[in-house]
Amino acid sequence: MSERKPVLGILGGGQLARMMVLEGAPLGVTFRIVDPADTPCAAQLAPTRRADWNDLDALAPFAEAIDVATFDFENVPAETAQWLTEHVQVHPGPRALAVAQDRMAEKTLFRDIGLDTARFAAVDTRADLDRALHEIGAPAILKTRRLGYDGKGQFRLRDAVDADAAWAALGEQAAQHGLILEAFVPFDYEVSVIAVRGRDGEFRTWPLTRNWHADGILSLSLAPAPGADAIADSAFAHARTLAERLDYVGVFALELFVKDGRVLGNEMAPRVHNSGHWTYDGAVTSQFQNHVRAVLGLPLGDTSARGCSVMFNWIGAMPPVAPALAVGDVHWHDYGKSSRPGRKVGHATVCAADFATLRTRVEALAQALDRVEQASPLLDLPVS
Amino acid sequence: MSERKPVLGILGGGQLARMMVLEGAPLGVTFRIVDPADTPCAAQLAPTRRADWNDLDALAPFAEAIDVATFDFENVPAETAQWLTEHVQVHPGPRALAVAQDRMAEKTLFRDIGLDTARFAAVDTRADLDRALHEIGAPAILKTRRLGYDGKGQFRLRDAVDADAAWAALGEQAAQHGLILEAFVPFDYEVSVIAVRGRDGEFRTWPLTRNWHADGILSLSLAPAPGADAIADSAFAHARTLAERLDYVGVFALELFVKDGRVLGNEMAPRVHNSGHWTYDGAVTSQFQNHVRAVLGLPLGDTSARGCSVMFNWIGAMPPVAPALAVGDVHWHDYGKSSRPGRKVGHATVCAADFATLRTRVEALAQALDRVEQASPLLDLPVS
Ligand SMILES: Nc1ncnc2c1ncn2[C@@H]1O[C@H](COP(=O)(O)OP(=O)(O)OP(=O)(O)O)[C@@H](O)[C@H]1O
Ligand SMILES: Nc1ncnc2c1ncn2[C@@H]1O[C@H](COP(=O)(O)OP(=O)(O)OP(=O)(O)O)[C@@H](O)[C@H]1O
Repeated sequence: MSERKPVLGILGGGQLARMMVLEGAPLGVTFRIVDPADTPCAAQLAPTRRADWNDLDALAPFAEAIDVATFDFENVPAETAQWLTEHVQVHPGPRALAVAQDRMAEKTLFRDIGLDTARFAAVDTRADLDRALHEIGAPAILKTRRLGYDGKGQFRLRDAVDADAAWAALGEQAAQHGLILEAFVPFDYEVSVIAVRGRDGEFRTWPLTRNWHADGILSLSLAPAPGADAIADSAFAHARTLAERLDYVGVFALELFVKDGRVLGNEMAPRVHNSGHWTYDGAVTSQFQNHVRAVLGLPLGDTSARGCSVMFNWIGAMPPVAPALAVGDVHWHDYGKSSRPGRKVGHATVCAADFATLRTRVEALAQALDRVEQASPLLDLPVS
Repeated sequence: MSERKPVLGILGGGQLARMMVLEGAPLGVTFRIVDPADTPCAAQLAPTRRADWNDLDALAPFAEAIDVATFDFENVPAETAQWLTEHVQVHPGPRALAVAQDRMAEKTLFRDIGLDTARFAAVDTRADLDRALHEIGAPAILKTRRLGYDGKGQFRLRDAVDADAAWAALGEQAAQHGLILEAFVPFDYEVSVIAVRGRDGEFRTWPLTRNWHADGILSLSLAPAPGADAIADSAFAHARTLAERLDYVGVFALELFVKDGRVLGNEMAPRVHNSGHWTYDGAVTSQFQNHVRAVLGLPLGDTSARGCSVMFNWIGAMPPVAPALAVGDVHWHDYGKSSRPGRKVGHATVCAADFATLRTRVEALAQALDRVEQASPLLDLPVS
C-alpha cells in the first residue's frame, strides 16, 4: 500500500463496519460498504450500496470499486464469497466463513484440533432429536446450525419431555439449515480469545476477555479476565492452531466456556467481535485497526491492554449520554441506530489503571445510568 | 442531546474536521461539512457541501441542516459567522474568531490580560514600517495581520536594511489586511497550551506541549513538555483568563515562547490545533472529542496524558506506512490528501510509558522512515 491507497470493501454495514471505518480511516484507507438494508449505521461514514447477498449483478460494481473485501456479517452465502475471490482479495477466505457458518463443522474442527466441546449431535428430523437426547442427555440446547446470533434460534431443554416444545420451536428450520443438539455446559464462566492473524501468518492475541450474557445477548465484558492465567496459554494455543488450520487472515473471536479449570470451545466468530469492543479504548491497538491492518497486509499493532476495561452493551435503546460522560474515563459508542427491542445500539467502555479504580468507576457509571443490575456481575466479583 | 441526536456542522473540511468526525461519531453525533474546495479530505467521512465563505445563499441549506456550527478553519469572514448565529448555535462565537483572526487584536488582548508578548506595532504604510523598526529594533518579523498560517505571510528582517525587501514581499497586503511588526524573540523553546472550555464554563487543559518548527511549519511536538513545570501554572492561568474574557466554548491553542523561564504570548488558534494531535492517541480524551463535547454542551472528558507522546508532522507527502507500523506503539494518521509541497498530509504519534522508551521508539521510527533529521530535536534532548 505504498502509493495508491487501498479501498477496502465491507460486506455488511452495521456497527462492526462502522468501527472498522473509524479505526481504519487514519491508515489512509477508504471504504466501500454493501448491505441489503436501506441505511445501515456505517453508511453515515462511508459510501454504501444496497444489494442482496445473492444478487451478484448488484454486487458487481462494489467488487469493481475495491481492492480487498472483508466482512461485518459472516453469514454471506458461500457462493457469493467464492465469486468475490474471483474479483478481489477476500479476507477471511470462504473456507473460514463456511466453517464458522455451520455449528457442526465448527465443533468438528474444534475437536480435530484438540479443543474439547460440549457433547453434540446433528439433528435433521424429529427422530434424530430423540436419538440425540438419549445420547447426550438433558439439560441440553437445540440450536439452528446456521444463522444463529445473539442467542436467537436456540431452545433450552431442561428435560427429555421438552423435546416436543423444542421441535415445535425449531423443527421447521431443520429441513433448511439443520439443527444441532448440544449438552448444556454448567460452566464456571465464559471467556473469549480475540486474536488476529496477518497475511504473513503473524499471530497475536489480546488479553483474554471475560463475558457475561443476559437473555442470550452479551451484556458485559471485562479484560484482562481476572484469574484466567491458568487457562490463557491453552486458550491462545487453540486459537492459533485454529487460525493456522483455516489459513485465517484478520481478527476472529473464539468463545470458550471454562469449567473446573478446563476450556471448552463454544463457537468462533470470523470477524471483529462484540467481546473485543473494549480494545477500541483499552488496548494499544484496537481489534478494528488490527483487522484492517491484517487484511491489507500491513504490520500488526501491539495488542497489549492499557490497564483494565469493562464494556457495557446497550441493548434496545441508548441510555442518556451526559450522565455517563460525567464519570471519569468512560468512552461512549453510540452506533447511530434507532431504538428497537433486543437491538445492539451502542456500548460504553470504562477504563482504569487497576481493578479497584475500575470497580469504583463502573459503580459510578451504573448508578448514573440506573444500570446497577447490568453491572452486578462485575460488582459481585471478589476484589482479589 | 437526550433524544434526537445533534447534527454538528463544520466550516472547513480539512484534517481537523476529519478528526472531529472520527472522534465525535462515537458520541452519536452526525456531521455536515461545508468548504469552498471540491473534495476536502473530511468529505470521505461526512456529507460535504461546496460553498464560498461569503455566499450566504449557498451556506443557507448547510445552516438549516445543523444544530450547532463549529470551525476547522478560523478565517471565515466575520459577517458569515455573525449570520450563522442568527440560525444556529455557533461555538466558538464570532468575537473569539474576530480576535484570533487579527494579530493586533490578539496581542493587544494578551497584554490586557497580563500575558507579555514580543514588542509589536501595526504597519499600514512604508513609513509605518520605518517607524516601527526604529521603535522595536531588529531582528524583527513582519507579518500579515490576517490569514497567515504555517509561517506564510511572514518576512524576517535581520537588520533595518531589510525593510525594502520586507516591503517588497508584503507591502501589497498592507492596504487590504494590515501588517504587524514583531520583535524577534530569541526564545529558549516553544510550548502550547491546548485547552477546552465547556458551555457551562468548565475549563480543562492537557499537559503542556513542546513544539519544534521547520521552515515555519510545525514539525515535531512532545507532550508532556519536559522541564516545563515552572511555567505550566502561569501558562494555564493565562489560557483560562483568555477563554473567560472571550466567553470561549470549545478547544483552543495558546502558543507561547519561553525565554529565561518567562512565557510570552505568540498567538491563539480558536480551534483544535496541530500541536494537540498527540491527544488523539496519547491522552484519555482527545482534543477532537472534547471539542465536540464542549460545543454540544456535554461534560468534558479527562485531559490527562497516558504516558508521553511525540508527534511527527508529515509535510508534502506521506512516508511509507508499513515500516512505521512495524515500530511499537506508533499511531498513523494519513489525512487522505494528495501530495503537494508544504501541505500537511498526515502525522504519526509515538507513545510510551516513559521518556526513555519513547526516545528508543522515536529513534526506531526515524530510522525506519529516514527521518532522523526531523527527529533530532527530540533525540538531542537531555535524558534527564
Ligand atoms: N451448550 C451450552 N451450554 C451452556 N450455555 C450455552 C451453551 N450454548 C450457548 N450457551 C449460552 O448462550 C450464549 C449464546 O450462545 P451461542 O454463542 O451459541 O449463540 P449465538 O447466538 O451464536 O451468540 P453470539 O451472537 O453472542 O455469538 C453463550 O455465550 C452461553 O452463555
Ligand atoms: N516574534 C517571533 N520571534 C521568534 N520566532 C517567531 C516569532 N513569530 C513567529 N516565530 C516563529 O515562527 C513560527 C510560526 O509563527 P506564527 O505562529 O506567527 O505563524 P503562523 O503562520 O500563524 O503559524 P501556525 O499556523 O503554525 O500557527 C512560530 O511558532 C515561531 O517558531
